[in-house]
Amino acid sequence: MSTLSTEAIRASVARQRAYAEDLFDQMARCSQRPRGITRDTYGAGENAAHDVFAKHGAGLGLEIRRDAAANTYATWPGNDRRLPRIIVGSHLDSVPHGGNFDGAAGVVAGLVAVAALRELGAVPRRDLTVMGIRAEESVWFQVSYIGSRSALGTLPPSALDARRIDTGQTLTEHLAASGGDPAALREGEREIAPTDVHAFLEVHIEQAPSLVELGKPIAICTGIPGNFRYPDARILGRYDHVGTPRRFRRDAATAAADFAMALDRLWQEHETAGIPMAATLGRFHTDAAAHGMTTVAGEFRFSLDVRAYDAAVLAKLEARLCDIAREIEASRGVRFDLGPRASAEVGIVSPTIRSELEQAAALLGISAATIGSPASHDTAAFASAGVPSAMIFVRNENGSHNPDEHMEIGDFLDACAVLAAWIAEHAI
Amino acid sequence: MSTLSTEAIRASVARQRAYAEDLFDQMARCSQRPRGITRDTYGAGENAAHDVFAKHGAGLGLEIRRDAAANTYATWPGNDRRLPRIIVGSHLDSVPHGGNFDGAAGVVAGLVAVAALRELGAVPRRDLTVMGIRAEESVWFQVSYIGSRSALGTLPPSALDARRIDTGQTLTEHLAASGGDPAALREGEREIAPTDVHAFLEVHIEQAPSLVELGKPIAICTGIPGNFRYPDARILGRYDHVGTPRRFRRDAATAAADFAMALDRLWQEHETAGIPMAATLGRFHTDAAAHGMTTVAGEFRFSLDVRAYDAAVLAKLEARLCDIAREIEASRGVRFDLGPRASAEVGIVSPTIRSELEQAAALLGISAATIGSPASHDTAAFASAGVPSAMIFVRNENGSHNPDEHMEIGDFLDACAVLAAWIAEHAI
Repeated sequence: MSTLSTEAIRASVARQRAYAEDLFDQMARCSQRPRGITRDTYGAGENAAHDVFAKHGAGLGLEIRRDAAANTYATWPGNDRRLPRIIVGSHLDSVPHGGNFDGAAGVVAGLVAVAALRELGAVPRRDLTVMGIRAEESVWFQVSYIGSRSALGTLPPSALDARRIDTGQTLTEHLAASGGDPAALREGEREIAPTDVHAFLEVHIEQAPSLVELGKPIAICTGIPGNFRYPDARILGRYDHVGTPRRFRRDAATAAADFAMALDRLWQEHETAGIPMAATLGRFHTDAAAHGMTTVAGEFRFSLDVRAYDAAVLAKLEARLCDIAREIEASRGVRFDLGPRASAEVGIVSPTIRSELEQAAALLGISAATIGSPASHDTAAFASAGVPSAMIFVRNENGSHNPDEHMEIGDFLDACAVLAAWIAEHAI
Repeated sequence: MSTLSTEAIRASVARQRAYAEDLFDQMARCSQRPRGITRDTYGAGENAAHDVFAKHGAGLGLEIRRDAAANTYATWPGNDRRLPRIIVGSHLDSVPHGGNFDGAAGVVAGLVAVAALRELGAVPRRDLTVMGIRAEESVWFQVSYIGSRSALGTLPPSALDARRIDTGQTLTEHLAASGGDPAALREGEREIAPTDVHAFLEVHIEQAPSLVELGKPIAICTGIPGNFRYPDARILGRYDHVGTPRRFRRDAATAAADFAMALDRLWQEHETAGIPMAATLGRFHTDAAAHGMTTVAGEFRFSLDVRAYDAAVLAKLEARLCDIAREIEASRGVRFDLGPRASAEVGIVSPTIRSELEQAAALLGISAATIGSPASHDTAAFASAGVPSAMIFVRNENGSHNPDEHMEIGDFLDACAVLAAWIAEHAI
């Protein structure tokens, strides 16, 4: 049981406002690419954010360490270092032209919690590690949770051969250039043994405006969706003249529209039935090298991400979408080539920690919602590896993965207070 | 009345097979860009084709001339040069990675007809001009009929400021570099006075497989569609995280799919009602600089070409599509920006020439279909300027505007025979 009062914790966290704001500013300054923030995975933007984090961790007197995947750890040593440690963290990369808080907020929250607890004179009985995780945004290498799974030893070695979508260089090459050790990873080296971890907690901005809608500053997460993905699917039709009658066409663009609308109807049905899911055709395009105003599109490319909180729902959705593709092939004379498939398991949040976080919020007088995560998170990789895991979401006005992402610092400090109160219970 | 028998004309045209094949080969060789043929408007590919044409015209002893728009004319002088002349021709440009016959077949047909009639010892009483037309494929400058309208003096001077979609250079710059005289065009100089033209005839491959379906080698055209076009339309939504719930999204890609399917349903209704039209979303794409697998598309771009044979049908379609865009804006929280608009009038084929061509085919024993043109053609520019105009289509197996376009030389020679027989009636 912590000797610190919730009032003292909340006040100490509130005093970290300027520290947090300055840290967010520094993160932004090192990765601005108008418009927005680009912290490219194993590239200049992400590397710079890890440097900012390491500098601030050292500034708090924490032990700084990098692992073979170039994840950064800042550890406040506990009195008994043999006790399973608490890890708090999130990722420091972003999508291209994204916002400053998606990912980084979870790392800053860890530092704020440490700073607030230290200021109260606390000494932890177990290690408390703030972790800056690499490569969570799968847009870059089309692989999920590269940093966290590397740390946990659950990343398939084949992922090291994945190529970054913009540079064409392999993960091995990028990792080596960012100070990692791909050879060690390939040999199965891992930094974190799940049994050595008491809990993993991640603060993250919400990626939807549910909390804006509910009028609450934070939420305790009830679960993380699993997904299936086709990062590089194609529809093959036939390029034809703009005047070609409808019955002769094998129009890949209209076939794609047909697929998109069927997917949207499927989602609408699930929405009506109250079954949470999401489906995204993020890349959805004719071929810039061959398309034109007076040519029927003979080829179309798209990415598909479908996510839900129930493995059975996902399996049914995938089967139905494959049927829909077959139906469109027959009706429109095209061929679907879904290409490589990726997937992530549904992430189970620890019911114990979730309930403790709810209690901490209540004690602090912070009104917390409970919502399913719309997005995948590193927390899912920790949960899959058997680490008791949980998440706190922070209200965010304009969605994420865009430059207009917006988080109020007051809402963020509410999340930090809940985090610090939970840590105090378990480590002080 | 011609003194030449249809049998003699047909046999003489048949003897031009090797000449035609060689000419097509030379056209292809100077503009191959694997895959397919690229005769870029006022660029290297088109210029080379005009040189091949001029060389062959000179080889037949014809008078070669270039006008201010760099159109090429090869004229067989008539006994009475004051009589209105016959012009036979088509365009020598192509879409990127198109086929060898779309356009060029009409120019080769003119040379074949001249060669066949000369071989029979004929001397025309009026000038017979084979015209190699510039810049028919509007994909390059997003402007219709640049070459033919320049020759007729009906091109709006503002078109000279249009920029080629790949090079970014203006029509003025490209025209000057191809030996044209943009200043003269800007001052309204025209090469062809419509009253000085007896008729304009264009042989062209069919751009759809209607003739394959009908089992006929050629068709006499019943009309040329008018169109309206939005070459660079946009849908503005909001970039969002992949997990964003459906109700919060402003997904530009799904909005585009919604629009595409509404357009397809509209076309299907017209098809069922027997009202010919065509609609094409040739460019249909998310933004390559900002899209990604884990980002909801915040912007979408497309081109729209809608064509029909009746101005009233076109007007109704355009009004309905604008309504549909408004409906999607309301239901999906996006904004349509249709951008610049272009249009072309419906092209009326001369009923007299059309019936004469049908009679000529019947006399020659060639089974000719009658079909509406699926596509726009320079013929429409001549018809709009008041020149009695007509077209002959040649069967084409694999559609056009693609590298697999395929024309049998026997079918082509059937079209040349009908053309030569008609010319003989009117000029010999």
